[in-house]
Amino acid sequence: MMYQDTIVALATPSGAGAIAVIRISGVEAFPIGASVFQSVSGKELSKQKTHTVHLGHVVDGNKVLDQVLVTLFKGPNSYTGEDTVEISCHGSAFIQQQIIQLLLRKGGRMAQAGEFTLRSFLNGKMDLSQAEAVADLISSDNEASHQIAMQQMRGGFSSEIAKLREELLNFASLIELELDFAEEDVEFADRTQFTDLVTRIEFVLKRLIDSFAIGNVIKNGIPVAIVGEPNVGKSTLLNALLNEERAIVSEIAGTTRDTIEDELVIGGIGFRFIDTAGIRETEDVVESIGIKKTFEKIEQAQVVLYLFESLKFQVSSLEYITEIQKVKNKYPLKPLVVVINKIDLLSAEEILSIQQQLETLNLKPETISAKNSTGIDQLKNQLLSFVNTGALRNNETIVTNSRHYDSLIKSLEAIQKVQWGLQGNLSADLMSLDIKQALYEFGTITGQVTNDELLGNIFANFCIGK
Amino acid sequence: MMYQDTIVALATPSGAGAIAVIRISGVEAFPIGASVFQSVSGKELSKQKTHTVHLGHVVDGNKVLDQVLVTLFKGPNSYTGEDTVEISCHGSAFIQQQIIQLLLRKGGRMAQAGEFTLRSFLNGKMDLSQAEAVADLISSDNEASHQIAMQQMRGGFSSEIAKLREELLNFASLIELELDFAEEDVEFADRTQFTDLVTRIEFVLKRLIDSFAIGNVIKNGIPVAIVGEPNVGKSTLLNALLNEERAIVSEIAGTTRDTIEDELVIGGIGFRFIDTAGIRETEDVVESIGIKKTFEKIEQAQVVLYLFESLKFQVSSLEYITEIQKVKNKYPLKPLVVVINKIDLLSAEEILSIQQQLETLNLKPETISAKNSTGIDQLKNQLLSFVNTGALRNNETIVTNSRHYDSLIKSLEAIQKVQWGLQGNLSADLMSLDIKQALYEFGTITGQVTNDELLGNIFANFCIGK
Repeated sequence: MMYQDTIVALATPSGAGAIAVIRISGVEAFPIGASVFQSVSGKELSKQKTHTVHLGHVVDGNKVLDQVLVTLFKGPNSYTGEDTVEISCHGSAFIQQQIIQLLLRKGGRMAQAGEFTLRSFLNGKMDLSQAEAVADLISSDNEASHQIAMQQMRGGFSSEIAKLREELLNFASLIELELDFAEEDVEFADRTQFTDLVTRIEFVLKRLIDSFAIGNVIKNGIPVAIVGEPNVGKSTLLNALLNEERAIVSEIAGTTRDTIEDELVIGGIGFRFIDTAGIRETEDVVESIGIKKTFEKIEQAQVVLYLFESLKFQVSSLEYITEIQKVKNKYPLKPLVVVINKIDLLSAEEILSIQQQLETLNLKPETISAKNSTGIDQLKNQLLSFVNTGALRNNETIVTNSRHYDSLIKSLEAIQKVQWGLQGNLSADLMSLDIKQALYEFGTITGQVTNDELLGNIFANFCIGK
Repeated sequence: MMYQDTIVALATPSGAGAIAVIRISGVEAFPIGASVFQSVSGKELSKQKTHTVHLGHVVDGNKVLDQVLVTLFKGPNSYTGEDTVEISCHGSAFIQQQIIQLLLRKGGRMAQAGEFTLRSFLNGKMDLSQAEAVADLISSDNEASHQIAMQQMRGGFSSEIAKLREELLNFASLIELELDFAEEDVEFADRTQFTDLVTRIEFVLKRLIDSFAIGNVIKNGIPVAIVGEPNVGKSTLLNALLNEERAIVSEIAGTTRDTIEDELVIGGIGFRFIDTAGIRETEDVVESIGIKKTFEKIEQAQVVLYLFESLKFQVSSLEYITEIQKVKNKYPLKPLVVVINKIDLLSAEEILSIQQQLETLNLKPETISAKNSTGIDQLKNQLLSFVNTGALRNNETIVTNSRHYDSLIKSLEAIQKVQWGLQGNLSADLMSLDIKQALYEFGTITGQVTNDELLGNIFANFCIGK
């Protein structure tokens, strides 16, 4: 499948830098590239080998726009599978703009978001889940999400799905064959072997579906609600967690006061810390709204981090324990970490007393001094313990894409119907429909089954130039 | 001249994009590149030809960091003149960071600002003025500054200087020869020819020095002070000028109120519009401070744009004319453009009457309606008329660099001394000193004469990766 038009885009981030790369892909890539390029050695661009680099100038008539390096990729040995020319120019926004405008005048078309990768998919250079992994890879900002995207891009996930689909396809054709010989009541598909396969598929599907729980949090970060009164040391705690990891902090102004989100990477996993106002009972209307908001935030979080100040806890321990109890009752399944901050203000005995009080609630508090970075490592391990990183460590396939998750759920439903059909000795023609449904859903993941709307949705999220 | 260490840097702008390029240069570039790269085809990197591109993975032990393209440049056929490896990876900040850290662990060193270009200069790939042009080229954001930087980078300026220096050097050696034969009182250097040369050099130097007036404004933008009362339509005017040019507007918050700077490109030339508060006499202390500021701004500007509203001008014309007269008296040599805005509010007759009033001051006002974009082209031409673009159009060498300007001034001083010496029949030994001084100053421009401090100053202004 080849396109008649040739696309052009800046492939490197916009802005000033040492160099910028402009990419041209399509049937006219070589003629368009050659029409604006004068080689220093006088070589004719079109006669050069694939994967070679040439020094020269981009010229617009008599005007020299820049000294550049041009790299040639002959289809199908390119990212898109088409003829591709990369122009490596000086990294000035003005030059980038001038060269791109020139290429458009010479017959190129500005690429749409993700169009290079879309062509790569349509030209069979990668399947759909690999194409999706490219965008994930570019947006990954921590070890875990990078590792998963990389595995997916290299085809780990696709090959697992494709293998199952192929085996299922074999049985599907045998079942179809039975339909052709329906009168004769023969069974080409060994029902025992088929049951084995379906059980195996079900097992794999369930594992992949389960992996989404971890995959999703790894991709989007694990939301942790920090519950605590003002001045309890929330920012100091976040800084203490951050400083040691030297990770990137992004502060996103929330929609209301007290809802600042901090994202940071702990042990290669992204955590999103959601600040809340705490939940102390009060007559104050504004504070009541604050309590409602806190509960909303807790609802959205996967982990609740309950932060207290040691001195205050000592004074009002019963009151605070009632509060904790309230949260535990409201969200019995949500992991809750009680953290006592500023332990440098108490003696070891006093700390022990607090710990014993909390043990009555079956809680083992983390005792820290955010200011002095005491107890921070322990707290990090506690937070990481909520993430099942086993799959990550074992390099198992992890689903991070909600589109894949949906397709896997639908595949499982179809496969389970096939299973029930086999158990109930369902006729081949009815079973065939469920098998086809499962095959269809598998196909949407790797892109063997697709449509324009689906592709449009997927590639619209890409950056231009990829 | 070769360096023992190998430098590494991100060459593309930071941030997310389709691809990013990491550059490695130095004696260990190939071994370091090979140590982290696994070719898809199993080829050994070190055995590949220069200027070829290879698909593979960057690996850190067993961990695959990214799928990349690696390009090889064997010294001296590279930007730096050294062995160079370029890794084109996915444009994620996380991946860039991981790969760069890996390369540093493998023996690379993080490059300093401008170090690639510094090596290019030290390895004789370009002279100093060409190296300086690289930074100018990257920061150029309009046609004119781009054209000048491009010409300088391609050696136009250097070759002009180098040619003069060589001719002067010939005469210098003849004069030196005379010193050796001082007893015999011979003249190896034909004084008439030498006088011709010195006159020619003086002429070229003066032209180059003169070109700095235009070169400097082209490089930094021409500062235009807009004088006018609030609500006279300053922003509307700037937008009208901007909209047609579709140029980049940068708004830099000033240090005080009323000092917002807008930069825009008109006819390929950058203009910096400096907003001022106007200069109406007033009792108000705050406004008096405003007037003082306005005069300061006018002082810094190359052109004064005096903006009035047509209706108000009609009502208080005498008062306004006194104001204009005051500015003209204070800055008699500064080009002054009087602009009457909102002419759609007056009849043709009324406009004519205003024009006649201003003619008494020898002023031909521009009559515009910023809102309706009437008269804007005329105003642009008026602004451009203050820029002597002749040299630009004729592709003459234009000096934009104040370091070069200083050296040229010093060269001229030395050459003029030589000239006086020739006129006064000065002895060869005394003339020789002045010739050497001129040769020295020429040499500092192209970098034949240099020192660490000078190089440090020049390359510190480069971006890292260039």
